[in-house]
Amino acid sequence: MRAVIKERQPNETLKMQKLYFSCFCHKTQESLLSSSSGYKNYRGIFNWCVVMLVLSNARLFLENLLKYGVLVDPVQVVSLFLKNPYSWPAACLVIVSNVFILVALYTERQLSKVMLFDNILCIFFLSVFCPSLCLPMSLSLVVGGAFVLGTYTILFLKLYSYKDVNRWCRELSTVKAKKLSRSLSCPSEQHLNGGDRKVCYPGNLTIRDMYYFVFAPTVCYELNFPRSAKVRMSFLLRRLFEMLFLIQLSIGLTQQVQVSLMYVMVLETVFLLISVPNHLIWLIFFYWFFHSSMNFTAELLCFGDRQFYKDWWNSETVTYFWQNWNIPVHKWCLRHFYKPMLRRGFSKIVSQSAVFFLSAFFHEYLVSVPLRMFRLWAFMAMMAQLPLAWFVGRFLRGDYGNAAVWMSLIIGQPIAVLMYVHDYYVLHYRQEVE
Amino acid sequence: MRAVIKERQPNETLKMQKLYFSCFCHKTQESLLSSSSGYKNYRGIFNWCVVMLVLSNARLFLENLLKYGVLVDPVQVVSLFLKNPYSWPAACLVIVSNVFILVALYTERQLSKVMLFDNILCIFFLSVFCPSLCLPMSLSLVVGGAFVLGTYTILFLKLYSYKDVNRWCRELSTVKAKKLSRSLSCPSEQHLNGGDRKVCYPGNLTIRDMYYFVFAPTVCYELNFPRSAKVRMSFLLRRLFEMLFLIQLSIGLTQQVQVSLMYVMVLETVFLLISVPNHLIWLIFFYWFFHSSMNFTAELLCFGDRQFYKDWWNSETVTYFWQNWNIPVHKWCLRHFYKPMLRRGFSKIVSQSAVFFLSAFFHEYLVSVPLRMFRLWAFMAMMAQLPLAWFVGRFLRGDYGNAAVWMSLIIGQPIAVLMYVHDYYVLHYRQEVE
Repeated sequence: MRAVIKERQPNETLKMQKLYFSCFCHKTQESLLSSSSGYKNYRGIFNWCVVMLVLSNARLFLENLLKYGVLVDPVQVVSLFLKNPYSWPAACLVIVSNVFILVALYTERQLSKVMLFDNILCIFFLSVFCPSLCLPMSLSLVVGGAFVLGTYTILFLKLYSYKDVNRWCRELSTVKAKKLSRSLSCPSEQHLNGGDRKVCYPGNLTIRDMYYFVFAPTVCYELNFPRSAKVRMSFLLRRLFEMLFLIQLSIGLTQQVQVSLMYVMVLETVFLLISVPNHLIWLIFFYWFFHSSMNFTAELLCFGDRQFYKDWWNSETVTYFWQNWNIPVHKWCLRHFYKPMLRRGFSKIVSQSAVFFLSAFFHEYLVSVPLRMFRLWAFMAMMAQLPLAWFVGRFLRGDYGNAAVWMSLIIGQPIAVLMYVHDYYVLHYRQEVE
Repeated sequence: MRAVIKERQPNETLKMQKLYFSCFCHKTQESLLSSSSGYKNYRGIFNWCVVMLVLSNARLFLENLLKYGVLVDPVQVVSLFLKNPYSWPAACLVIVSNVFILVALYTERQLSKVMLFDNILCIFFLSVFCPSLCLPMSLSLVVGGAFVLGTYTILFLKLYSYKDVNRWCRELSTVKAKKLSRSLSCPSEQHLNGGDRKVCYPGNLTIRDMYYFVFAPTVCYELNFPRSAKVRMSFLLRRLFEMLFLIQLSIGLTQQVQVSLMYVMVLETVFLLISVPNHLIWLIFFYWFFHSSMNFTAELLCFGDRQFYKDWWNSETVTYFWQNWNIPVHKWCLRHFYKPMLRRGFSKIVSQSAVFFLSAFFHEYLVSVPLRMFRLWAFMAMMAQLPLAWFVGRFLRGDYGNAAVWMSLIIGQPIAVLMYVHDYYVLHYRQEVE
């Protein structure tokens, strides 16, 4: 055919060819939004959510300002942390936590010289660190208490990991073959950026290394963390701006909810009023903590591994969500709880259940202790994930599974929150009302 | 190293290896939400938007129901289309449009037998079809008028494309080489699904082919459209459910806005109250028209090409948005307006401007005629895209450009809508108020 066309005037041939191709403009294909198209790029929708959040908050902010004046009250915010602004119990407890850090470091230094049995070490560790989890229980502040408890929980996970990794290094360095020992207790070059000097086992037991780990946005200790080349100033400032803006935003939303709840006492209406703001506050908290704050800290410390969450927003099963929304803790559970249990000969199902119960325990602990109410709602909410995971995994696929995970987040969470709020008010204000 | 390990007990070696790999759990990587990670899969965020839309609407629906009773009034909806329910002018005009379709078919049949010059044909076409655009102007119904105007505009584009493609086929069939002619005016097998019989030029001038094209979700005529294998019943029902649900949803939102506007007369507050619902209604309309309805029609007609929109939600420039949100019309402009102009020797910039003015004209036409107000706001809104496109393309990149495009949609649209609403009320209700 091409030969036939070539015989004609080149100009007219070109015109004819163009006309010919103009005749075809359709081909068989699916719409992008159809799930069968396999198309996944929705970065723009994420930006849309951010723009809508900012714009609708600007509107809410303006309306609020016109109606009630400035609601974001710094005195109220600070007073959440300090019942008596002159005694500062929360701040004191944070300062006290340094004692545990230094005790852990000192213990490890002694252990690197003297040999002790594993079990004795474990008992010793528990007798030192369990008090660190009990200490904040003495606080009677709700927000300040939650903050201190969070700090102590993270510190507990970090020191446990520190102890574990140092023990592994000792075990590896007792291996007879010296060459093996050096390559095992010391990472190979491939894990490091070129040019960094690497640290070997007893050399890591310094105050500088310890405090780098304490402030680093991870709970899994490693002798040589991957490092980023330099601090990018614009990245740091953007994260800082996000942190400040989002704190402002979530406090505004909380106080907005408080105002709208003032005259409402019916439980169903309260649920309708808090469910969407509660979900938004949770999303803002997620972004604030796992993206802005952790990236800010990591950038400051040149900490290279920024995987603080994976794509849990696409999770089509409940299990996928729990494995991907909080990567530091998930990593810790896998490395220091699940795999050691497997190594000790427990079966997979027992180990999984144990991880799950540990997680449920910490969820209950972080809510019950600051509120001083042992109601087990958080524990039960975690337990309810098991039948939910079974149901979603069994009956729902793809986008429907994803929608179910979102629904459980949007509806499930405020139910648990409402239970605690309800019980808290009944406990503290009923007598006053009567 | 592996050799050294092999010398030891295999069991203990395995344990040592596992311990060794436990020591490393970090590697240098960016967070997924950082734009530098290059990660784009946010299908879950899209599902989140849908879930939130449904849930918050359920809440709004419930609140609304408790406060005002059933707001979605079917009589009001029908009366939007019919001023006098017994005269049905809009329906009559839609029925009259069949005359134009049959005239176009008859003309093409005559032309396939008798030869006429191109220019005479063009004049004839304009003298027949321009009345079809003027006819609905006689209507004085707003919503019914917009519906009829939309139908007539789409029909105009379709018949113009029909005329063009048939003329191309005639031009190609006059080419002396018979072999070439057959291969040109008749598509090759590669464009068709196996098993379909293909139609050649004069054979396509049937009533069946004509009405298939009139109802097909495209405005570009082609002799042999790509066809899908069969009608998927579940796909069809899901689209039908979406269509019904979204109509209900957008009517509910509109009436919600009407109620909240009842007591407000300040322009700024009106803007705040309508901007977000207006944007949501636009998004719902987009999904309803370009995804649900068009896919529904396409599935019914086994029409294979489902590309009715591309990924405009990711557009980082204004130009990209206009090229991707309405693919059928964009394709038509390219095929029947831009490329023919280029072939006639106009420069690129002149052709682009001409397409832009045509688009601005139709935007103004579709708004002004039903409202019977020639205010040029829609025309000016389209014209304002030019400096906006320049500004966004010049100063903003990536996510910032995308956010700017979203902002222009969320804020720009309601400004234009508000202008019309304001002028409409001033024109029709001021005398009553005074």
